Amino acid sequence: MACSNIRYGAGVTREIGMDLQNMGARNVCLMTDRTLSQLPPVGVVLDSLTKHGVKYKIYEDVRVEPTDKSFKAAIDFAKQGHFDVYVAVGGGSVIDTCKAANLYASHPEAEFLDFVNAPIGKGKPITATLKPLIAVPTTAGTGSETTGVAIFDFENLKAKTGIANRALKPTLGMVDPLHTLHMPSRVAANSGFDVLCHALESFTALPYNLRSPCPSNPINRPAYQGSNPISDVWARHALKIVAKYLKRAVRDAGDVEARSSMHLASVFAGIGFGNAGVHLCHGMSYPIAGNVKTHRAKGYNVEHPIVVTINCIILPFKNLGSVSFFFFSTKSKDDAGRVLADTLRSFLYDLEVEDGLSSVGYTKEDIPSLVKGTIPQERVTKLSPRAHTEEDLTALFAASMKLY
Amino acid sequence: MACSNIRYGAGVTREIGMDLQNMGARNVCLMTDRTLSQLPPVGVVLDSLTKHGVKYKIYEDVRVEPTDKSFKAAIDFAKQGHFDVYVAVGGGSVIDTCKAANLYASHPEAEFLDFVNAPIGKGKPITATLKPLIAVPTTAGTGSETTGVAIFDFENLKAKTGIANRALKPTLGMVDPLHTLHMPSRVAANSGFDVLCHALESFTALPYNLRSPCPSNPINRPAYQGSNPISDVWARHALKIVAKYLKRAVRDAGDVEARSSMHLASVFAGIGFGNAGVHLCHGMSYPIAGNVKTHRAKGYNVEHPIVVTINCIILPFKNLGSVSFFFFSTKSKDDAGRVLADTLRSFLYDLEVEDGLSSVGYTKEDIPSLVKGTIPQERVTKLSPRAHTEEDLTALFAASMKLY
Repeated sequence: MACSNIRYGAGVTREIGMDLQNMGARNVCLMTDRTLSQLPPVGVVLDSLTKHGVKYKIYEDVRVEPTDKSFKAAIDFAKQGHFDVYVAVGGGSVIDTCKAANLYASHPEAEFLDFVNAPIGKGKPITATLKPLIAVPTTAGTGSETTGVAIFDFENLKAKTGIANRALKPTLGMVDPLHTLHMPSRVAANSGFDVLCHALESFTALPYNLRSPCPSNPINRPAYQGSNPISDVWARHALKIVAKYLKRAVRDAGDVEARSSMHLASVFAGIGFGNAGVHLCHGMSYPIAGNVKTHRAKGYNVEHPIVVTINCIILPFKNLGSVSFFFFSTKSKDDAGRVLADTLRSFLYDLEVEDGLSSVGYTKEDIPSLVKGTIPQERVTKLSPRAHTEEDLTALFAASMKLY
Repeated sequence: MACSNIRYGAGVTREIGMDLQNMGARNVCLMTDRTLSQLPPVGVVLDSLTKHGVKYKIYEDVRVEPTDKSFKAAIDFAKQGHFDVYVAVGGGSVIDTCKAANLYASHPEAEFLDFVNAPIGKGKPITATLKPLIAVPTTAGTGSETTGVAIFDFENLKAKTGIANRALKPTLGMVDPLHTLHMPSRVAANSGFDVLCHALESFTALPYNLRSPCPSNPINRPAYQGSNPISDVWARHALKIVAKYLKRAVRDAGDVEARSSMHLASVFAGIGFGNAGVHLCHGMSYPIAGNVKTHRAKGYNVEHPIVVTINCIILPFKNLGSVSFFFFSTKSKDDAGRVLADTLRSFLYDLEVEDGLSSVGYTKEDIPSLVKGTIPQERVTKLSPRAHTEEDLTALFAASMKLY
């Protein structure tokens, strides 16, 4: 497994201009979104670039929950700019968009679908060397600063998919806990559950030595390797932090200890799932995001329908029993699954996460299309520790209509 | 912090020929020592190179506990060979020697002392791009497959020193638990204590935000950053594994679970101390190795005097009290230090580690020169969580003459 370079500390982003100078950057592409561009995290970066005389262009049209269309707009900007270094300041949407822009600007001849995960795309290998990318995460959730993954909604198919390749891993992640103090409480809750899902799923993913097919040549191995002794360290540790700090981080934006801890937890979980992978929960969530029609997530300043809590909305509890062994103390193995499920439910309730699929506008009638949308996600679903049929998926979606 | 690429699994080294093919290697330098060259770990690598038609030259003259002289011999071999990839199969001595050979072959103009740590050497920055290096560790101790450090005995000064630079980090560490099954019991014990020291020292090292001087430019930061929330994860986890498996791994060479666990623990501890650093214990150990005259370590097939357990021989217990909080359950903070010290002593006793400096030929008369030899090691000693005078060092050496 590999993990990215991470620099952690309050105020580390103030140094970014110096880092870019050290890298000999002459023409930097700074990507962010319209909300963040008005906030301190971007301000600090701009001041540092100016102070060290680093030339840059800003792209602030990143879409929260990006689509193939929004990816392509960013890619066009990158192609025209001929940039030598990329800087992404934002949450997973910004960092993922920046990864895609860097990738396709380095592969100007490529069709958009060339690198998108099969079967939706062609999943071709990346041969060009990408430009350095510095990721400055402002949410504590996606862990995108540590992974080789870029996720988007493919609008024609109404499904989430992405690009997964080690080559997309940021050169450096600057994890500055001060940035997370600007997260609205809802964003802290939703991104916190994202951390929880990353950790739970990567910890419970099929073990690396049971994954199949097992390519004879290491170069053909998938980015998602299956759970392994190293990713388990990260997942386990992230879960402990979430259990201890998530509620505090949501309740009080000024709780620096809780918010910095959750920020680190998202890094830890990211390193874990970036190597081990995620499974059913994420695979099932992709069509949900793609099919949602009217739901507006609270606390997000966007004009389009999004669901940001999809992962936790459909946590397939049954798969996760074993986890509660360390996550909570349970008397016997038998009630481990129940204890975990109950604890997660009360978490979701206490933090006022939408109560299941019905709360974001889905009905039983939608289940067949949700199941259909999950099938092509086998890149992740095949890492589920339990084999599953379409009937199982139907049952899981039905059980996810209401949670508490 | 950064951590290296690690591939873990029983039999992974069988793939190495394919990896070298993927890297386009045409002329590989394989470094090992004379004992290992007769053993399966090297055999597996050679078979894989042959099977995939990878051309290579073997250097098997690595010295266990290398010196500036043995480093230079390996460097000459590397310079003459014009290699495009390096493969190190062995313990820390082999991997460190290979790092140095790669470094100086990539910097043919450099004097040997140019990159050696100041104040002994000039500690110059490394500007050339080194060739890829694949490390295949056969002991579970040094963690050298994860670090940017290469340690050697500087014979003129009778002191250990080294080269510490991120550029030395192996490109890939292939951690194959099967290899550790060939470790003699003594080597398992000594390298296991090395893991213990790496984890304890990096966990108790001065926190990264208290380290001084604090270079204004990130590029001037030392390889050893001080303890931080990420290195702590590795140190803590390594300690738990050591507590659970070290004795089993020493007692029974066939205990695959224990030996593989210790192999992983050395990787975890290596990633931790490779970023956080080590402190007093290592700093004080360097002159010990340099000054030892006649001691022959049990279980090592070498013709020169070496001490391999120096680190644990002088564990400065007092600094480590806090650690026992998670390492062992203690009733109150007050007895934490005592509990840890006692537990370490019984570990050392049970595993028949030499009983202190006196057991390897040192007397009180040697203490002044040992203290003198520790002074130039401030690269590490300054990371001690507790300030110390020459008197403190004298007292610590005196207390280390006999341990149990």
